[in-house]
Order: sequence, then structure tokens, then C-alpha cells
Amino acid sequence: MENNLKRIKDSSLHSLVVGADEAASWIQDGMTLGLSGFTRAGDAKAVPFALVERGKNEKFKVNIFTGASLGSDLDKLLSEAGIINKRLPFQADATMRKNINDANHLFVDQHLSHTAEMIRSGVLPTIDFAIVEAVSITADGMIIPTTSVGNSLTFVSQAKNIIVEINMEHSELLEGLHDLYEPAEQGKRKPIPLTKVEDRIGTIGIPFDIAKVKGIVFTNHKDSPSAIVPPDQETQEMANHLMDFLREEVKAGRLTNKLAPLQAGIGSVANAVLHGMIDSEFEDLQVYSEVLQDSVFELMDAGKVNFASACSITLSAEKMEQVYGNLENYRDQLVIRPQEITNHPEIIRRLGLIAINTALEFDIYGNVNSTHVSGTKMMNGIGGSGDFARNSRIAIFVTKSIAKGGNISSVVPFVSHVDHTEHDVDVVVTEQGYADLRGLAPRERAELIIENCVHPMYKEQLRNYYKEALTRGGQTPHVLEKAFSFHTSLAENGTMLDKVNSIA
Amino acid sequence: MENNLKRIKDSSLHSLVVGADEAASWIQDGMTLGLSGFTRAGDAKAVPFALVERGKNEKFKVNIFTGASLGSDLDKLLSEAGIINKRLPFQADATMRKNINDANHLFVDQHLSHTAEMIRSGVLPTIDFAIVEAVSITADGMIIPTTSVGNSLTFVSQAKNIIVEINMEHSELLEGLHDLYEPAEQGKRKPIPLTKVEDRIGTIGIPFDIAKVKGIVFTNHKDSPSAIVPPDQETQEMANHLMDFLREEVKAGRLTNKLAPLQAGIGSVANAVLHGMIDSEFEDLQVYSEVLQDSVFELMDAGKVNFASACSITLSAEKMEQVYGNLENYRDQLVIRPQEITNHPEIIRRLGLIAINTALEFDIYGNVNSTHVSGTKMMNGIGGSGDFARNSRIAIFVTKSIAKGGNISSVVPFVSHVDHTEHDVDVVVTEQGYADLRGLAPRERAELIIENCVHPMYKEQLRNYYKEALTRGGQTPHVLEKAFSFHTSLAENGTMLDKVNSIA
Repeated sequence: MENNLKRIKDSSLHSLVVGADEAASWIQDGMTLGLSGFTRAGDAKAVPFALVERGKNEKFKVNIFTGASLGSDLDKLLSEAGIINKRLPFQADATMRKNINDANHLFVDQHLSHTAEMIRSGVLPTIDFAIVEAVSITADGMIIPTTSVGNSLTFVSQAKNIIVEINMEHSELLEGLHDLYEPAEQGKRKPIPLTKVEDRIGTIGIPFDIAKVKGIVFTNHKDSPSAIVPPDQETQEMANHLMDFLREEVKAGRLTNKLAPLQAGIGSVANAVLHGMIDSEFEDLQVYSEVLQDSVFELMDAGKVNFASACSITLSAEKMEQVYGNLENYRDQLVIRPQEITNHPEIIRRLGLIAINTALEFDIYGNVNSTHVSGTKMMNGIGGSGDFARNSRIAIFVTKSIAKGGNISSVVPFVSHVDHTEHDVDVVVTEQGYADLRGLAPRERAELIIENCVHPMYKEQLRNYYKEALTRGGQTPHVLEKAFSFHTSLAENGTMLDKVNSIA
Repeated sequence: MENNLKRIKDSSLHSLVVGADEAASWIQDGMTLGLSGFTRAGDAKAVPFALVERGKNEKFKVNIFTGASLGSDLDKLLSEAGIINKRLPFQADATMRKNINDANHLFVDQHLSHTAEMIRSGVLPTIDFAIVEAVSITADGMIIPTTSVGNSLTFVSQAKNIIVEINMEHSELLEGLHDLYEPAEQGKRKPIPLTKVEDRIGTIGIPFDIAKVKGIVFTNHKDSPSAIVPPDQETQEMANHLMDFLREEVKAGRLTNKLAPLQAGIGSVANAVLHGMIDSEFEDLQVYSEVLQDSVFELMDAGKVNFASACSITLSAEKMEQVYGNLENYRDQLVIRPQEITNHPEIIRRLGLIAINTALEFDIYGNVNSTHVSGTKMMNGIGGSGDFARNSRIAIFVTKSIAKGGNISSVVPFVSHVDHTEHDVDVVVTEQGYADLRGLAPRERAELIIENCVHPMYKEQLRNYYKEALTRGGQTPHVLEKAFSFHTSLAENGTMLDKVNSIA
């Protein structure tokens, strides 16, 4: 304990140390909790675990707001415990997904840059308890976050009560890595002074009102390692196509080999695509992203990336050991910010990001579905993909052209849910090729997408749809009664493939 | 002519004065033209007219890029003349619309804040000729724009050649009304220093390279008056519902009676809704919009609006006379900026706008179609609605609940084209009522929208759809094979109304 208390440098706070069970007991039915945590990194762990335990013997429900998805199976446990009323703004857990789709609890799928703004302006319910993981509390009254910042700054500034979880597993070397900046009220705010990826514009910790700190809990749970799948041949092909596109940009004089600051979405595909740049001619790269995955550190190690900014670091077990065991090697090239700043339209447009995100499916006109399987079942959520796609310099979406052994085509006549409209999607990439949609009218886009991106199994079928659509005319030709035929066929026959094609 | 030349204060340019026919003769097949003009205001007129004449005897095609829609029937004439290859980023003319939908020429429907960025970064073809209307050319080398700025600043800075049309119909009192600011290259730019609606951050005219000026043409064509329909009972009801929503915001302490800077889309409905605020308790209002229509000046006259910023002023004939005849009364309360600045995500988020735009249709989950009739036929284009909706503090969409005497319901199970996703739409308003969707999960949204916004004729039908969808489950329940049943029924039977309901 002696050792633990050293992490609370303001000794007047030592008396607030409590057990996780006691802290969890303060939470009442109907409350709203703001938990730290962003894609399995830096989540509050001990108090939520204790809350799950309480849920086994007691009936209550709370709203769970976070940065993004939680690690340590917390989303699974909270959801199973039946204690969630409303969850936002993102999740990525199979059990929670099922409970959302079975309407066992509510889920609001939000742009990740919006949550802080909506809390501050009073549109979302007031946060009753901010529960945030920390490395330490400084003598001058700041909470030093751990491996993510997420929405913690706003949770702490807006909550009625604060519980800090000091996680002894995290090295104190994390102090100094963060940059905390919160915009003032809308209409009264100044420009956000960040003009370069590496700029520091705020404080190294989260300032807080001592009177609001209700308790401090010690824990020693590690972050969950990421569950990314290693690159495969198809992701390497996608990376190659993406790099071909970027080479064309360089050739046209629109970019140099330094490209522009890169953003890459969470997940195996985006990770693999970034990984694919290791042996490329691109150099002196910068990353301005939401989450740093293994690939960014591989690119740093290879001397390809010279600086990376994000609101979370989510690594495989192996990479965790390497990075956190050698933090001194990376700390001059890293900054962790609030998700409101990493995903802020002002900064994204100013820096002119190249945004690479994963699509679930896209259609022949370039609309993208990132969230809903067959238009109805939630996968994970839009995350930051909309924040980035909408305001970036080049919005790129990647996906394998088929799934489920070819029974699903990722390119369809009409996406069954739209998360990114044709107006916001610049380039689509599959392992088949890429389509650069910028400046093209819908009919030009359709031809390019079918030609370049569709799997050979589905080319004829999409061509036939488009041919029939053309007989109907219009700026964006469709046969509305067949627009979802790929999806209804999947539901009825287990495949999107036409019978004619299946037999052939 | 003596009098005309006084408008060119740098006399070294006097020798460049030519007739419109001569200027039009310089334009070659395959060129790209950047024309001034935004929603019928400030368009280059004489040279495009001459080009249309040339098209009668000669075969050539050009790309026509503008601020937004053109007045003086120019979009109609250019389209009819068959001399357009590609048109962007917006139009609003019936003949051009037909030609777009018949695929007689291409149309790229762009966010209005994107065009300048795409030209500057070399993604769109280089502008061969910028043809911009002006009040005058100053002695220190600036073009003073007229009633709109649109994309003229970027057209002039990026074009290979410049033609200036000095329109003697416009008063020289317009000088000083404009504020021209162009961001530097992405990655090298500073924050845009605008923090208040009334801030001036640039020059009063468009700086230009004298060597690029190929000709100066004099004209005296007036701007086309706007074709807005006067407010009716239903638009007044919509305004009342919108004000009820705003009153709730004031009651909740999220806004004061001064609200937040207002943006209102082009068109009769948005105009009528703003007009409806005249007799309200809201006061000291500010407008940060794209286009100022009659209603903004009515609100100024009523002492309700103290400042208005836009990239264009589009008025009825009567209002034109009043405003331009008494410009001295308004000039301290007005500024005209480039559309890149009026629609910039950085500024929209910073100021925290309340954005009011018109929907063609919206669905039970809050997705909005602003552009495509029955998903295929282009109406006008997305305009700035996406720029505003995506980054505003409150994104509001308004539409009458039915059209075509009730054969069309503006609320449908699934919009036939998505311009604004469920993530970006905060409030929907019809004459039936409003639905505040912020912080709601899809199932909560569907119930509220059906209850509050749908016309009684269609309530049962939408409830039945939703009930059946619920049996399928999911975060966003749908019956995909019936998702477009309203639209296919309209195509087949001339009405979206179910037979059962029609008989009843």
C-alpha cells in the first residue's frame, strides 16, 4: 500500500482510497457512468468488475458511456449482467452485439468526436460518476491517464463525482505522453492551436476538482491485448493497391513520398494495410489517428514513421511488451490526446489527412456501410470513420471483395445501411483493385467500381443489375425493387450469388 | 464607355476591355471554366451567354464549375446548347435536371465546401478560364465581387486565365461588403482566425495576377430574382414546431433567447421557417449561412437579426430593390465570404451553428434524402446541407409530411438515397411536429418519428412496417424486401398509399 500511495502525490487525497466494492456501491439505479477506455486500452477495470458482481444480486440499470470499446471482457460482462440501460458511443464485443441486436439494451452509435460535445452542451444526461484509469495523481492536481485518453477529460470535467482507478500495472513512464486540451463552449471558443501532428497544446494530465473526487481505487489488471489477425495475402494485395493509388498521387504531384498525415481505423485490415507500407518507398510518415495498432510501431521501428498522435494505443501481447518495456525509445515520437481532438473536423481538415477505414460493404455508387450486417444487425459502430472520412483530404475505404467463402459480395447494388455517403467517399479498395471516385459522376463511379473492385464471381451479376438500372435512367440509376436483392438472396438462400451463376 | 472605364481603377488594364463574343471565342473544346455565381446571384453572364450562342453553330464541350446554381437561365441555356461535359457542384434548373437525369451530360453533386479544396489540390481539372462578375477592379489590383463570392477566389487564384465581367447594374456600394480569405495548402495552413460571425479575416476583394487577365467585359444584366414561394399555413406550422423545439432548448438551459448562429438552406421552406421567427421571443440573432434570402432581411428590419454572414444574397425582385436601394442601412450588418469559409467544418463546429435544411424525404430512423427523387432522379444537389449538418451544433431537417396531394409521404421506411446519415441528423420537423433524435437509439427514434412527424394518412402504414420489422430484430429493424415498398408503389400505382388504406 505504501508503494501504491506514492502514486498519489497530493497526500490530502490519501484518505479517499477505498476498495472497488465500496466504490461500486455508490452507483445507483438510473445513473450515467463515464468510463475511461478506448479499444481495449486504458479502461477503468476494478469498479466496473465490482459493479458486474453487484448486478448478480441486485436489480439496477445504468447508462455506460465510454471512449470506445472496452477491454477485459467488460462490455461482455456488463451486457450479460443485464445492468445496462444505454451504451454509447461504440462497442466491439460479440455478446454485447447480440444483446444490442436482441434489443436487450439500447445502443447509440455515435461519431466519436461528438460525444464530448454532447455531454458538455447538456444534450446527453449528466455524468453521475466519471470512473477513469490513471497512472498517478500529480501533486498539482492532475490525473495522469494510462494507455488511452478517450473521453476521460470531458467525463472528469463534467461529472458530478469522480472515481480514479490507479493501475499499478502501468509504468509511471507514461507520464508526459499525454496532451489534454478541451475546447471552450461553442461560440466562445478559440481556434484549436494544433497545426502539426506533433504539436502539444494542453496539459500532461486531466485537471480536476478535488471536491468531486469521491474515491480512489488501486488495481493491477493489465490492458487486454488486441485481437488482430495477422496480415494475409489478400490484405497484402489491398495494401499494394492502396500504395499504387498513393504512387499515382505522387506522380501527379499532389503528394510527395512523405504523403500526408495518415489515419487508419481499428481492426485487422487497416492494420495490415499500414503494415504493408514497411517495404515501400514512402518515408518520413506521420500518423494522426484514433488508435495506434502494432503496425504503427513496426513502421516506427523501420524508421518509416517519425511521429504518431492518437487517443489510444492498442497492441498485441507481444507488441505491448516491446513498446511498454522500451517506452523511452518511443516517447519523443508519441502523443496521446482526447478523442475529441484526434477526431476533430477542424484538425482533420487543417492537416489534410489520408483516412483509411474498413467498410463492411460498399455499393456501385460508392456509398459505404460500416456498421450494420444486412442493414439491421449492429456490428461494432461507426467509430471515428465518419469523423475522418467527412473531413479528410482523401477518404479511403478498404474491404475484401467477398466474405463467407464467396457467399457474400462486399460490393452490392445498394448498401443496406449508409454510414458514409457517396459525397464523402474518395477511394474504395479491395484485393481486386482500387477505384478513385474523386470528381466522378455516379455513372462513371459505377463502371469503375464494377470493373476494378468486384470479385470475378459477382462481376456479371452486378453488371446485369447496373444494365437494368440504366434502362430506368436518372443521375443514379437503380432498380429499386431489386436494390436489396443481394441481401434478400443471402437471407433466403444463404448466398448472394444468383442461381444461374451458382449452377454455372 | 468613359463611365464604364471608371470601374477599372488600374488604367493599365483598360486595354484589356473586349466584347463578350470575343472573350467567348477564346474558350476551346475540352476546357474547364470556373464561373462566378451562387444561387442566382453574382453569376458571370455575358460570356456564358456568348458561349451559348457559339454553341449553336459549333460543336464543343466544356466543364462548368461554379459556386452553386446559376441565374439568368444560364444552367438551362448551357445545358440545352449541349456544350456541357461535366457540371459541378450544384444546379437547380428544370431543364438541366432533365438533361442530367437523361444522361445528356455529367453532374457531380458535391459538398459546397469541397470544390475549392479539390481544385487547389489538383484533384479536379485545372481551371482554364475563371470568368467572374465584378463591381469593379481596384487600383491596387483586386476584383470586387458582386452579390456572391462562391468559389470565385479559388477560381481566380488557380485558373490559367481570367476574364472579368464588370456588371454596371451593381452598385459600387457593394465594395467593402466582402471578406476574402483562402486557406493555405493542407498541412501548411494556420487556424482560420474567424471566431465570431462578424469577424473580418481577409481582403475586400479578390487579389489576382495581372498577367493572367485575358479580358475584361462590361455587362448590365441584373441578377435573377429568387423564385421562392411565399410562406403558407404548413410552413408556419413547421416554423412553430421548430420554435417549440428551440424553446425547449432554452428551457433546458442549453440555449438562450439569442440561440446560436443560424444557418438556413436555400428554398421556400427554410425561408418560411426563418420568416416565422419574426414574431417570436428570440432576439439578437446572428446568421452564419450560405445564402441570405428575403427572410434574413425581414428579420434584420424587425430588429431580430443583428448580423448576417453568407457567400451569396438571393432575393425576390421586391426585396432586391429594397436592399440594394438602401445598402447603407445594411452594410454594417453584412459580410459576404467565399463558400469555403461559410461552409467550413472548422468554423461551423467552432461557432456551434443551428443548421436548418430541407429534406426531400427522411426515414423512420432519421436518415435524410436531400437530392434524389425516388432514389434515382437528381433534384438539385446536396449543396451545403452536408457541410452544415455534419459539423453543426444542431442539425435540423424540415419538410412537409406529404407531397403530391398525399400520394407521397415524406417519411418512408428507408430513404431511397442517403445524403445525411442517422449519425448526422439531430431533429426532423414536419407540419405535424418535430422529433428530437439526439442521444436516441434507432428504435427510440422510429417510435418518435412515426408518432410526431408522419401525416395521419401514413401513420398506420409506417407503424405496420415497423411492427413487421421488429419481428426481424436487430439494432435497426427492417424488412429489406419491403424497405422501398413506398417508392415502388408510387412508381406502379401513382401513390405510396396502401390499397387497404386507400379504400378505407
